[in-house]
Amino acid sequence: GAAARAWAWLLACVAAAWGRVAGFARKVWRIGADDPRKVVHGLKVGLSLALVSIFYYTRPLYDGVGGAAMWAIMTVVVIFEYTVGGSVYKSFNRVVATASAGVLALGVHWVAGKTGEFEPYILTGSLFLLAAAATFSRFIPTVKARFDYGVTIFILTYSLVAVSGYRVDELAVLAQQRVSTIAIGIFMCLAVAIFVCPVWAGQELHLLTTRNMDKLAAALEGCVEDYFAEGPAAQPQARSDGYRCVLNSKASEDAQANLARWEPAHGRFGFRHPYGQYGKVGAAMRACACCVEALSSCASAEARAPEHVKRLLRDACTRAGARCARVLREASCSVATMTASSRALDLAVADMNTAVHDLQGDMRSLPSMLAVKLAETSLVDTMPVFTVASLLVEIAARVEGVVDA
Amino acid sequence: GAAARAWAWLLACVAAAWGRVAGFARKVWRIGADDPRKVVHGLKVGLSLALVSIFYYTRPLYDGVGGAAMWAIMTVVVIFEYTVGGSVYKSFNRVVATASAGVLALGVHWVAGKTGEFEPYILTGSLFLLAAAATFSRFIPTVKARFDYGVTIFILTYSLVAVSGYRVDELAVLAQQRVSTIAIGIFMCLAVAIFVCPVWAGQELHLLTTRNMDKLAAALEGCVEDYFAEGPAAQPQARSDGYRCVLNSKASEDAQANLARWEPAHGRFGFRHPYGQYGKVGAAMRACACCVEALSSCASAEARAPEHVKRLLRDACTRAGARCARVLREASCSVATMTASSRALDLAVADMNTAVHDLQGDMRSLPSMLAVKLAETSLVDTMPVFTVASLLVEIAARVEGVVDA
Repeated sequence: GAAARAWAWLLACVAAAWGRVAGFARKVWRIGADDPRKVVHGLKVGLSLALVSIFYYTRPLYDGVGGAAMWAIMTVVVIFEYTVGGSVYKSFNRVVATASAGVLALGVHWVAGKTGEFEPYILTGSLFLLAAAATFSRFIPTVKARFDYGVTIFILTYSLVAVSGYRVDELAVLAQQRVSTIAIGIFMCLAVAIFVCPVWAGQELHLLTTRNMDKLAAALEGCVEDYFAEGPAAQPQARSDGYRCVLNSKASEDAQANLARWEPAHGRFGFRHPYGQYGKVGAAMRACACCVEALSSCASAEARAPEHVKRLLRDACTRAGARCARVLREASCSVATMTASSRALDLAVADMNTAVHDLQGDMRSLPSMLAVKLAETSLVDTMPVFTVASLLVEIAARVEGVVDA
Repeated sequence: GAAARAWAWLLACVAAAWGRVAGFARKVWRIGADDPRKVVHGLKVGLSLALVSIFYYTRPLYDGVGGAAMWAIMTVVVIFEYTVGGSVYKSFNRVVATASAGVLALGVHWVAGKTGEFEPYILTGSLFLLAAAATFSRFIPTVKARFDYGVTIFILTYSLVAVSGYRVDELAVLAQQRVSTIAIGIFMCLAVAIFVCPVWAGQELHLLTTRNMDKLAAALEGCVEDYFAEGPAAQPQARSDGYRCVLNSKASEDAQANLARWEPAHGRFGFRHPYGQYGKVGAAMRACACCVEALSSCASAEARAPEHVKRLLRDACTRAGARCARVLREASCSVATMTASSRALDLAVADMNTAVHDLQGDMRSLPSMLAVKLAETSLVDTMPVFTVASLLVEIAARVEGVVDA
């Protein structure tokens, strides 16, 4: 009866909930399995927090810093980032902003103290003005890119010191305690970030760039081959969808290049490694991916060109596509090994240019070989290859300028 | 002699420094003049900080909350964001994370207290585990998008309460004070954000979308016209560069759509306004901008097509381009007024399809009208218009699905 139905309904609910939880758990597991460094990052944060909290538990250390040990914990929580560059960026901002705001606030506090009863007004007024100016400065692109976090900390420290100065007397002791605890927090944080399985933003950027080049090459090849394949293509998406990643990678590239600038020299990355160049290569790759996108939308449109027309151009097109892809792969290789323009790359570019030239020749002779009416429908579909090829030459030229050991 | 030279050098240095400062000041001024809301935002932050600091200065209010007034200031500094959505997102995250972490920490603290001397080990262990798990959870895309800030606050609060619970006795009083001050900070912050010149993320997103559509239309028109213009084009960049903004707007679009979800109903934006649709429109626009990019790179290549060939196709191409641009403008209009697919838009789409059809017809008849050898060089350059046009039909279809009062 009703009870049985209610029971069945409850069971179904539980089963559905369980299924959802299991699905979520599987997704989470896959994130961890795909990139174990993410799990390691979590453990690193836990480790440095545990280290810092030891300060609080051991009597002699606690007596040294007092209740301000809180600030060490706070510092670790807000500063620890996935990449070393991120942590250094935040530490630097935090130190500089805390110090400058603290000194400024102590100065204003001292001046305001001389005026007697006007003190609160002066303090509030200066707080208002400084907060407004600092907040506005975040809209300046340079400040936004380099010191965004520092501005927040600056306002925070200034207001804390200026306001609490009104009620607390031993301001200097407070400031000194706070500075030393923040230093402890930063020290722990950077030590763990750098010495336990470090994740370098520069390396990530490097990997992203080479991986994107390879994806682009695969997508280009896939596109051209799918179009000229005999019979209906099975699943053209799998390979040729890589260009989408390339198109959407601008934001993460910019962020990583920004953070990478803060990193000390490590491995093959020198101190003044030209991270700006990665941005240029990325832009060129995106321009290229755009062309691939246009090409693939042409290819996936209803196949209008008759088979025999396609067959005439297939060889030249496939060859041009394959050579373009090879240039990209060589370029990715040369970026990966950080060698200046290698012989292999030069050779590949020359090959590509020959192939494109051949293709142009084939197309020019096509109309005379065919009934005129059929020619242009086929041309419609092969045209973008041209564009891609010419862009590829451009990209190759740029890449050569970039690779610099 | 040497003194005069040193003096001249000093003067030159000062002049250079002054010039740089003046240039920077002019840039900053322009940022403020271009969008006065940014200046207003700075003033708003200053205002709410000043309001909160009053709590600290007035004796009866100070007695009510005690030294924890710091937390109100801190809350205002970290929560105040440019858009209302951002502030609401951070407030919500802060409240939920603080409350849940606080309760959890008190529970663990109580349990650990029962075990006697193992207390520090249990506390540190739980801190390590929770921090690791919470940090790892930030890599899950959903959590990242909605609760990134909340996770930080969760770790922070948990560690503060769990660790300080070891030394501080009246933990409950401390927690209660902190919650009330955070509530005060959030209340002030949201009141100022919403009632003083609010900046809505939803509205910003809306404006961005329509502005991008207009830019795209102008770029498309500019490209086609420049290519078919008689004589050397003066400066083709100015108009047709708009598509670059469209290509690079993905990150800001995503961020704004994310924040807009947190906003209460305002103006013509209902509570469950379909912000996800803007993302789809944006993606379609980026696909379109890709085509424009390919088109413009064709157009800016050495003009290979002879003048008389160009002249034959000029009318049809220009018409198709203009009609495409009109469809985009109508679509932007219909998004701006939030009306469902209007008659004008339908009409424009039909017009565009006719124009594209005409163009196709013209191209088909071209080879018979010309010496065969010249035909294909011209086709090379007009082909992308096709692609653009077909993509435009697609985009128009999608836009129609989107506009919903």
